[in-house]
Amino acid sequence: MKRLVSFILFLVVIVSARAQTHPIAFFNTSEAKEVATSLQAFPLLTNSFNTIKKEVDQNIGKDIDVPLPKDPAGGYTHDKHKTNYMLMFNSGILFNLTGEIKYAELVKKMLLKYALLNPTLKKHPQATGNFPGRLFWQSLNDANWLVFAGLAYDLIRPILAAEEIKTIEQGAFKPEVDYFTKDLKDWFNLLHNHAVWACAGVGIVGIASDNKEYLEMAMYGTEKNGKAGFLAQLDNLFSPDGYYTEGPYYVRYAILPYMLFANAINNSKPELKIFNHRNNILQKALLTCLQQTNLNGAFFPLNDNLKDKDYTSNELVTAISIAWKVYGPDEGLLTVAKKQNRVILNMGGAQIASHFNSAKSTPKYFPYKTIESTDGVSGKEGGVSIMRLGREKDLTSLVFKYASQGLGHGHFDRLNINLFDQGNEIIQDYGSARFIGIEQKYGGRYLPENTGYAAQTIAHNTVVVDQKSHFGGDTKLGEQFHPTKLFSDTSSSNLLAVAARETNAYKGVDLQRHLYLLQTAKKKKFLIDIFYVSSDSLHQYDLPFQYNGQVISTSFPYQSYTKNQETLGAENGYQYLWKEAEATVFKTTAQFTFLNNNTYYTLSTLADDSMRIFFTRAGANDPNFNLRREPSYVLRTKDAAQTFVNIIEIHGNYDPINEFSVGAYSTVRSIKLLRDDAECSIVEITLNDQKIIVTQAKKDFSKSSDHRYTVDNQVYSWKGPYSITTQSNK
Amino acid sequence: MKRLVSFILFLVVIVSARAQTHPIAFFNTSEAKEVATSLQAFPLLTNSFNTIKKEVDQNIGKDIDVPLPKDPAGGYTHDKHKTNYMLMFNSGILFNLTGEIKYAELVKKMLLKYALLNPTLKKHPQATGNFPGRLFWQSLNDANWLVFAGLAYDLIRPILAAEEIKTIEQGAFKPEVDYFTKDLKDWFNLLHNHAVWACAGVGIVGIASDNKEYLEMAMYGTEKNGKAGFLAQLDNLFSPDGYYTEGPYYVRYAILPYMLFANAINNSKPELKIFNHRNNILQKALLTCLQQTNLNGAFFPLNDNLKDKDYTSNELVTAISIAWKVYGPDEGLLTVAKKQNRVILNMGGAQIASHFNSAKSTPKYFPYKTIESTDGVSGKEGGVSIMRLGREKDLTSLVFKYASQGLGHGHFDRLNINLFDQGNEIIQDYGSARFIGIEQKYGGRYLPENTGYAAQTIAHNTVVVDQKSHFGGDTKLGEQFHPTKLFSDTSSSNLLAVAARETNAYKGVDLQRHLYLLQTAKKKKFLIDIFYVSSDSLHQYDLPFQYNGQVISTSFPYQSYTKNQETLGAENGYQYLWKEAEATVFKTTAQFTFLNNNTYYTLSTLADDSMRIFFTRAGANDPNFNLRREPSYVLRTKDAAQTFVNIIEIHGNYDPINEFSVGAYSTVRSIKLLRDDAECSIVEITLNDQKIIVTQAKKDFSKSSDHRYTVDNQVYSWKGPYSITTQSNK
Repeated sequence: MKRLVSFILFLVVIVSARAQTHPIAFFNTSEAKEVATSLQAFPLLTNSFNTIKKEVDQNIGKDIDVPLPKDPAGGYTHDKHKTNYMLMFNSGILFNLTGEIKYAELVKKMLLKYALLNPTLKKHPQATGNFPGRLFWQSLNDANWLVFAGLAYDLIRPILAAEEIKTIEQGAFKPEVDYFTKDLKDWFNLLHNHAVWACAGVGIVGIASDNKEYLEMAMYGTEKNGKAGFLAQLDNLFSPDGYYTEGPYYVRYAILPYMLFANAINNSKPELKIFNHRNNILQKALLTCLQQTNLNGAFFPLNDNLKDKDYTSNELVTAISIAWKVYGPDEGLLTVAKKQNRVILNMGGAQIASHFNSAKSTPKYFPYKTIESTDGVSGKEGGVSIMRLGREKDLTSLVFKYASQGLGHGHFDRLNINLFDQGNEIIQDYGSARFIGIEQKYGGRYLPENTGYAAQTIAHNTVVVDQKSHFGGDTKLGEQFHPTKLFSDTSSSNLLAVAARETNAYKGVDLQRHLYLLQTAKKKKFLIDIFYVSSDSLHQYDLPFQYNGQVISTSFPYQSYTKNQETLGAENGYQYLWKEAEATVFKTTAQFTFLNNNTYYTLSTLADDSMRIFFTRAGANDPNFNLRREPSYVLRTKDAAQTFVNIIEIHGNYDPINEFSVGAYSTVRSIKLLRDDAECSIVEITLNDQKIIVTQAKKDFSKSSDHRYTVDNQVYSWKGPYSITTQSNK
Repeated sequence: MKRLVSFILFLVVIVSARAQTHPIAFFNTSEAKEVATSLQAFPLLTNSFNTIKKEVDQNIGKDIDVPLPKDPAGGYTHDKHKTNYMLMFNSGILFNLTGEIKYAELVKKMLLKYALLNPTLKKHPQATGNFPGRLFWQSLNDANWLVFAGLAYDLIRPILAAEEIKTIEQGAFKPEVDYFTKDLKDWFNLLHNHAVWACAGVGIVGIASDNKEYLEMAMYGTEKNGKAGFLAQLDNLFSPDGYYTEGPYYVRYAILPYMLFANAINNSKPELKIFNHRNNILQKALLTCLQQTNLNGAFFPLNDNLKDKDYTSNELVTAISIAWKVYGPDEGLLTVAKKQNRVILNMGGAQIASHFNSAKSTPKYFPYKTIESTDGVSGKEGGVSIMRLGREKDLTSLVFKYASQGLGHGHFDRLNINLFDQGNEIIQDYGSARFIGIEQKYGGRYLPENTGYAAQTIAHNTVVVDQKSHFGGDTKLGEQFHPTKLFSDTSSSNLLAVAARETNAYKGVDLQRHLYLLQTAKKKKFLIDIFYVSSDSLHQYDLPFQYNGQVISTSFPYQSYTKNQETLGAENGYQYLWKEAEATVFKTTAQFTFLNNNTYYTLSTLADDSMRIFFTRAGANDPNFNLRREPSYVLRTKDAAQTFVNIIEIHGNYDPINEFSVGAYSTVRSIKLLRDDAECSIVEITLNDQKIIVTQAKKDFSKSSDHRYTVDNQVYSWKGPYSITTQSNK
């Protein structure tokens, strides 16, 4: 009998919903109906549904707390409002899929409570910064609330009486929308991930409440001139090939409001063809951000990035289910969906679940490939190259960042590299200093060590001049410039080359880095890294390598600070580094071997004159134990011009169970710079059994140019920007 | 045609082998035949066979190098001789399983090379210490060679001509046997894991060459009086319940020669019933050592222990296949065998593989349980208690070590604790400082930091008096004494109690530790740790906790050493610790929360008077980067008597993907010592919602004694050594 009532209610809902055209934002009734009929057919969909149902059912019949905002992130009221908006959203979906009125009633009661609370709110007591929230410490979290509460409202609108509609729209939503579009108008009109959330929230509420004004502000900015708002965000935050200027960690976050709002627009105004906007920019954004992950799915830690985040995060689950629905099947996404092990309850989610039902096996790894992304609206503000060598678990990825500043979350890391191998971080990036969701750690906010250390140049793997960060650590200044890619060559699967130049990070200092990732005929992998630094005047040049592993050996003696330790410097991030040891080397190839997850890595450095080398460790001036105690290896020279030549060899294997090492020694014997002038450089790398000769044009990168130089009666000639040749070492 | 020849050869071999009673040491021909007929029947056996066959086949037809010994561990000649003995052993097995003569020929050629080399050898050029090897830097590795070369010889004896037999026995084996039993007689006659290998080697060669003299020396020592040799090793190195006095890492290593030699004895002299010796001591040894592993199979890092080692190591593969054959099926072993994913090619291996062939699923975890082992030949020299709470992945294990010194590999860690939770090390043990198999790290030998730091008391989790290690760091002195267990109670699955006392580690200082691992009705887990230290005179008492995780918060202010760091002390391991921060607390409950793998742990400490607290990190005075940079938290008091009361609460959960923390704060509000005198102590722990009262007798541990004390008009009475009661906190 109860079931029959539910069923009748279900039909009523569908009919009345149709009449009112709601729900429409997350899905419409016909999509809901299709999902509902598939619920028991595909295990992944069934499980995803059951998980949500179990969570929501625990709250049915209870008086849900909608507390007065009080705590910072990680605290009770913060977490409660966060739980609440997801609860409303999920309960709204369940109502549409089951027809059971109790789910709609739960949402209604909660929204009515918010309708009472929200008009009373002022700035949150824990607010810091220029963009305070009301329900939460920062406005961004209020925007999160608006997105999901707006969707929830739309999902249950059919059951609301006119008076309830008015109460909720005026009480729960209008204060937040007004706050965003009036009090925080400048923030709302930014081109930035926060504003994507804000516009999505206001726009979804606009669609849910048939409020044209809200929707227009969301689409075109408060001034409705298109300089702000969602379309401007689609147009300005991505490069033409889908690189998101704030980096992978933030597109991971922004992709959710992008997708959810686009989906709502597409449902209510399909004529806008929003998903085809800018040649399917949202599809490109999704695929690019997935390429910017490590083998384990973790996002490459460019800019402010928490290393815990991977592509199983909730935002990507949503993005993939929507993308599948609108862009159609994509086998690469299946690999990700399999690891996510859940889908959202829309048509895309049902289709993915249905795909898994067929017997085909899913590839173990996302189809990673070498990918070069441009940055900037027109794709002319540098970019990021991800060079990949090897397959599946043996994948080696070199990340070369020559992108623009990346807005406020950007780091001072021009021409930075990161090296990943077999899923491990070998030459790493600190990411950001933050414990999100842990109240005891500065309310879960970015820690002072984030700007103090993690964002500074010395925390990266690129040149620091005179112990100062790029652009003097000034984001606004950094935003005015970008590096330039000089050339790249990804035509061979065994040799990947790329070079870029940065002339503005330091006044009067030219930085130019050339990278070659190669695999020899004997399957040995090398990264050859030539970093040209030049100036008219004398400077100190530091080139740090954030190695990740256990020190095994060095080819040179060094002095350890055994009884007391001091910091490497006093500011610009140097104050966070303990000096563990240092050495001075002279006219040699200095070698340093470390072990990471049972593979050996040797960094061989040409010291063509005197060079100082430091072993450092993060953790100085860190009174609250906010930093991980990570090591780095810093090369230092003093000169006007310096060519750093470094080779990282990936070699050997350590088997601790059977107590064997194979190939524990580097095969690099020496590095020589046979010629190095304004036009070209010629590097000779002697291995145990062969020589690798790198010839490199430094100004003329045309593919058709012929180069010919003689060194010691030996002729070196090549066509194009570079050549790499190997010859037997007799 | 070729196959037919092989088959005929096979028959000939079987017949001739029977006539000569060889092979007999690893298996006899009938066992070999049974294994051979199962080879293609069970995938695990097939794969194990194919792996060995593939390795050996790569060497067939090649001239195998038997180099002049030169390099230390990890170097070429070391690794080559190591590879060689396994190659000979495996090839010998393949000969018996396939009948293909090429496998026997390979072994023969290699043994003949050794027959030429071995008589020429003197002390290895890289030898250090009192027990130099000849083929290897240490005699232990020569013993490894003897075990496997001896087995290999036995496996191919049927094809050898009389002259070859003589050459090999006189050339390859006699020099090594003579060296062990004459030059290194004292070492051979030790009761120690090295001597187990040595006796097994000599004994196996004895069986293989029908040399009664060798076998008798191996069984009863060079003097044949039973004071040394294999039987004495069975009798003296294990406690009656199977605890191996050198600890789990070393029984992992010794179990191989124990099992292989016992198996050879059993095959050749079944009347000795060697596997039933001392009530199946070898079975007990195996099961006890498996209980001494973490959820991931890693051995608990007691004494000198490398954390890389787990129960998938080769030694345990062999031990389990032999144990299965002689002691019969054991479902717990299947779990281990499944993770090992290989078996040895004997009857036991075939039977295990056959078991997996049936459809039954294998339990995911070894059947871990609370287990208390005694130490000492009669089980009267203290012991180790492993207290376990929770099931499967939520298992919490407390390891309490009150064993004897553990011979030369023992650490100065009387009354030490380690805490494991959910497979993670929470309160950890450094293990040993060594990179075995990495030549660059001191030839793979124990590093100076092993005795300098890892073995010292301050590297553990027990009291250090006056910054000196137990027994002044003197192993010989430590071997004269052992702690005493006072009582334990494992009758409840939610409350485990154990206490022990050590009166000899420091002259005039009495150490007594009482531990309770409990789970409340609300499923919260606590470790209550009461450590009584008493003396007639004033001392400095340090109680370190080697916490593993990220510092989250403390309840007290502390001073950080931000600009320079010094060491915690100058000797006894203190010189390896940087002082990162320190605090002084006074009459309070000092709390420290850290995060490990997304679970929070809070250590709450009663500071009943003034107490200093240090945050330290290993790595000072470590010029070769040999130590991991691990942190510790050290409580320090100065007094004659001190009762340390510490509570470790396991609480909450951090979800970095969804940015939520649940239960991030400890529920412990305060700790009070209501009474503490010679007879008893009464501890009151106030939680948010309840009180836990621990009443504890300190002298009378009889189960039937009644205790009754009045504190502030409140009567506390209980029966037996202790009681723990909870009451609502109003």
